[in-house]
This record gives sequence, C-alpha cells and structure tokens, in this order.
Amino acid sequence: MAEATGERTTISYEKLCAGMTNMLERGLGYPREGADVTASVLVEADARGHASHGVARIKIYHEEVRDGKNDPKATATVVHETPISLVVRGNRAPGFPTSKTAMEKTIEKAGTSGTCMTVVRDSCHFGIAAYWAEMAAEAGMIGWAFTNTLRASIPTFGRERLLGTNPICVAIPAGRKPHFTVDMATTTVPLGKIEVAARRGGVMPVGWAVDEQGADTTDAVRVAEVNRFDKSPFGGQLFLGGATETLGGHKGYGLGMLVELLTAGLSMGTATYDTYQEGCGICHYFQATRLDLFGDPARIQSHVAGILDRVKNSQLAAGHDRIYTHGEKEYERREKSLKEGIWLDPATWKRLDDYADLWGLEHIEP
Amino acid sequence: MAEATGERTTISYEKLCAGMTNMLERGLGYPREGADVTASVLVEADARGHASHGVARIKIYHEEVRDGKNDPKATATVVHETPISLVVRGNRAPGFPTSKTAMEKTIEKAGTSGTCMTVVRDSCHFGIAAYWAEMAAEAGMIGWAFTNTLRASIPTFGRERLLGTNPICVAIPAGRKPHFTVDMATTTVPLGKIEVAARRGGVMPVGWAVDEQGADTTDAVRVAEVNRFDKSPFGGQLFLGGATETLGGHKGYGLGMLVELLTAGLSMGTATYDTYQEGCGICHYFQATRLDLFGDPARIQSHVAGILDRVKNSQLAAGHDRIYTHGEKEYERREKSLKEGIWLDPATWKRLDDYADLWGLEHIEP
Repeated sequence: MAEATGERTTISYEKLCAGMTNMLERGLGYPREGADVTASVLVEADARGHASHGVARIKIYHEEVRDGKNDPKATATVVHETPISLVVRGNRAPGFPTSKTAMEKTIEKAGTSGTCMTVVRDSCHFGIAAYWAEMAAEAGMIGWAFTNTLRASIPTFGRERLLGTNPICVAIPAGRKPHFTVDMATTTVPLGKIEVAARRGGVMPVGWAVDEQGADTTDAVRVAEVNRFDKSPFGGQLFLGGATETLGGHKGYGLGMLVELLTAGLSMGTATYDTYQEGCGICHYFQATRLDLFGDPARIQSHVAGILDRVKNSQLAAGHDRIYTHGEKEYERREKSLKEGIWLDPATWKRLDDYADLWGLEHIEP
Repeated sequence: MAEATGERTTISYEKLCAGMTNMLERGLGYPREGADVTASVLVEADARGHASHGVARIKIYHEEVRDGKNDPKATATVVHETPISLVVRGNRAPGFPTSKTAMEKTIEKAGTSGTCMTVVRDSCHFGIAAYWAEMAAEAGMIGWAFTNTLRASIPTFGRERLLGTNPICVAIPAGRKPHFTVDMATTTVPLGKIEVAARRGGVMPVGWAVDEQGADTTDAVRVAEVNRFDKSPFGGQLFLGGATETLGGHKGYGLGMLVELLTAGLSMGTATYDTYQEGCGICHYFQATRLDLFGDPARIQSHVAGILDRVKNSQLAAGHDRIYTHGEKEYERREKSLKEGIWLDPATWKRLDDYADLWGLEHIEP
C-alpha cells in the first residue's frame, strides 16, 4: 500500500479526525458539533478502505457550501412525528449532523415503541450509509439506511440519467463484531470505480455504464466526465445486472427505484433527477427495529451468527481462498487502520494541504 | 402465443380457480379455505405470465404432501406477539393459507399501530411474493414480503449450494393501478429460466450459475438437474451480479443473505441449507406500513406516481420502445388474461389431466 512518494502515508485516526474537524469548522464554517460528526464519518470511510467517501470529499463539500447548496449553519427540523415515525426537513444543512440527529431520535423512539421509520428531505450527502445503520446495530437493533444521490444512473431501456446510485444498507447485530452489514450502491459500481478506470487506461467492463444513446460502453473517460460534471442529461451508470434483462438489469433498476420511492417519495422530497437545483435536495430513509419484537434477542443473535458462520466456512470455489460475509472486509481494514494508521493516497494528502493553505490553516500532519 | 397443438389454449380465471380448488381439496386433502387461497395464488401467477409459479406446481405440492414435508390439514399458530410484530409457526401447513393469515393479521395490526413486522418459520412455498405484498398495497399500505426457499445459490467465491433464490418484494401504492411492485429473486434468474435453456439447446449465458467446482458454466442441462433434484451439494445459481465482484456479485449475495437473516434468522427458523429435511422448513418475512406515518397519504401517493411517470416517460435507449416501471408488465398481462383467458402451455394442460386421472377427478376444461 505504500505508494506515496512523499513522507506522509498513514495518520492516526484521532489526528485525522481532529484535523478534519478543524478544517470544517474554521475553513467551511461548520458549528463544532456538526464538524465533529462530519469528520468522524469521513475518517471512518478512509479507515474502512472506502476512500471515495473519505476526507478527500472536502472538495465537494467546499463547492456545495460555496455554491449555496449546503448551509453549514442550518439545522434540521422535525415536521411530522408519530410514536414510530419521523419526518425531518434538512433545511439544506450538511447531511452528517442531520443524519446523526435523525438516527439518534430513530433509535430512541424504537427503544420506546419497538421500531421507528424516519424519512428526511432537503438534506445533503450523508457519507457511508453503514455509519448510520450500524448506530442501530450498536444499540442491539436492526438498522436501515437508504439515500438518493446526485444524478448517476439510467432506468433499464432508457438513456436519461434520472436516478442515483441509491444505496441500500442494512445492519443486523450478531452478538459479536462485526455486525452483518450489507452496504451497497444499487448501481453495478460506484462512480469512483469508473473514475479509477478512466485514469488507468480509460477502459471499463461492459455492464458498468451506457453512453449518451443508451448503448453499452467501455469508455470510462467519457462516462466519468459526463457523470461528475453533468455534461449531458444522457448516458450514465447502469444498475446491478447491467443494461438488459438477461443478467437482471431490471432487478437492479427496481432496487434503485425502491430506494427513490422510500426516500424522496415518502418524504415528499426531491427525486434524484431534480437534486442539486436549489439546495442539494438529498433524501434519506432510516429505520431501527428492536430484536425483542421477534423473541429473545440473545438467541436470535446467536442464530444469526450461526447462519453467517455456516456460509463463510463453506467450501471454496477453485482459485479463491476466502468467503466473506458482509461487513467483515471493512471491519478488518478498520482494525488495521486503528493499529497501523489510516493510509491516504498522495493526491488526498495534497488536497488536504491545498485546502489548509486556502483557509490559512496549519497542514494536517501524521 | 397459440403454440398448443390440442384444442385447449386458454381458460377463464374463474374456471381455472374452481378447477384447482377442486384438485387441491379432493386430490390433496386441503381444507376448502386453504384450497381456495392456494388456487388463487397459483392462478394469479399464470394470469400475470409467471408460469414457473403457476398451476403446474401441483406436481411439487403433490410430492411434498406425499413425502410428508407439507401437511395440508395443519394450521399455523402465533407463538409471539407485540402490537407491531408477530412470530408465526407454520407447523408444516401449506405456505399459502399460512401466508394469507399472517398477512391479514399484519395488515390488521398495522391498521391499529401504524406498522407490523411478521416472521414465519416452518412454513412451505408461498408462491409469488407479490400476492402478499400487494395485499398491503390494496389496503393503502406499503407491503413487504421476503422468503427463503429450497437450496439454489452459491455465496460469492464459494461452491456449496447453501442459500435460496431468496426473493425481495415491496409494493408501494401510487393512488392508481398498478402499484409499484418490485418482486425479484436475488439470484440472476429463477431456476425456471435455466430449465427452459436446458430444453432449448442446453446453453445459458455466463452469470446465471456455476458448476460443482464453483466455476462459471453455460451448461444449463447439468445445473438444472443438480438444482432441481439436489444431485450434488455443489454448484448452483449465482446471485445478481454473477460470480465476481467486477459486476457486483457480492451485492446480490448480500441481498440474498439479508433475506436469509430476516426470514430464517429473525424467526429462529431453518436456514435454506437445511430446508426440506423434516418439513419444507421455509421461512417468510412480511411487513405492512401505513403511509400516514409520513404525512397525507393522498399527497404521498401522488408524489410517488409523479416519480414513476417521470422515469417511465423518459427518453429511450436506441432500439427500445418502452421503459417499464415495476408491476406494469404483470398488471397488463393480467388484464389481458382476464379478458382473453389465461394461457397455459400444452405440458401444463397435460399435467392437470394426469393429476385429475390420478385422483379420479373430472378434467379441467375451458
């Protein structure tokens, strides 16, 4: 992993959190509490090996604040409430403090009532969905976190980029770490993977995206440019299963649409095709559910762990050396990051320096 | 569609329901009420164009009863209950009456408490998941129906056939017909598609299944035989996204595992790798949620309909003439079946005759 050419490769979790909190507070004008949670979620992403959702996103959050799409001083408000539900209006506040408040209230209500389902409209990007779903799992509950996003993907047989990468995340506690946490964009890959392919030769596999006519393409450079900079309303990422029904593309599209309806639909919020007009306009869905709705939580968690163990200890396909269950890779990478430091690539180190310079702050140092 | 060589091609919905009820009652010993709902769900599948889940399954239900895996005289019992949850033990009763009772109680509780989540263990096959989720949508609620199945699929990088086709179904009312209903096996295709490929030349696309070493295969004949008759514990269907992480196979596997944990895990029931030992051992998860948890139901449904309309009326990829939203194909086929009769293929007509002969009943006639 030591590809960095300069001196800096890794940094401790705590130092990176402190440095990012400082940048968000003094550079972007976030209140301290909002800066704290935002820094935590970004650093968690890097610690787990998901650099696409890590501290390098300071650039995007800077642009959103500069363009007035994201108001760091705003706070979310609850606009509708029952014993088992909440509707939250984000008021263009950063998605991190809004999601923290929403998920805390969701867990609190579930603690009292057994479950709570919460929808949020007019929010901004909330980082890795697993952060929110796992808050419920840490409290011994099943946690759900869905979100729509910026425009990224194409309905099956279409060519307009109307829907998001629309991730689904569910965390189920198993009485041990890691939880079972499935956290997946409903598109075949995240945009970050197409951008990496664009930098490394420019070719990507069929099944990741279509061109502006809606046809399969392997031109990662063009798709990365169109999607990231919204250069055309046409062309974009494919849902899981690809462009046709042969490999189930209509199923991935169905899951993406389900996320769109549970987030933007139920919250009366902005569908992905209209996000980033006024504010970010992002919508979320959260749920926490107590296990004792279904019986003895300890017995259920032990049964869940047994199913996970049977699958992950099963016989391997030729040429493979491990079957993972969901959440293991990220958990193990996080443990390594806590022990050895979080690795950031040279471009990310440079970006952090550039923003520190822009805002007259000290560089973040390991 | 008129491939039939004999006289019979189509039959009215009512006649097919009456004929199937009669066969289930007098042939298999189902009580009248259980025969009624089972016939309805099977006929609905044929009416919607999903013959794999239609009346031809009389053969499988006959075998299950004959082998003692399915007890038509048994009835389900509620073993745990809160205002927003139910745990049901199927007692090896057919999955159809058990699911009807479970979903009726789920909707009733959601009517009182806002939502209800129900898990069922020790049940049998419940037919098309959409039938159950749409009961909630018909009542103006969001409906969820998941189930595990017989052994069919392979974890990513594995070769043991441990998990099911594990469908996910969610129905969201849109204030008009059809509802948004996504109903999808989390495997790339249902087993029925592999069996069709086996009959039509024997070759299937890469991405549907792996062989007994866990390697990609296009040999539909072998996979169909292994899966249907459980000839080997190895080899089987792939989850959505295929065998590798390149096209997201680990995501489909994550969804399949999620269904396994929500059904078998929460219900303390039999995981797919142990189904069909004593009884069928199938487990289900149902949920109904009232829209007014999130605001005015009419406004939410209208907003949902607007999102569906924007997507389905968007520009087409070259070579395609329509973008569907989920539930439309099945709804339109059902309308056609109600008007013109339900089409059954010659092999299905023959199977119905054979069972009528076996049980000394009159043939079902159009």
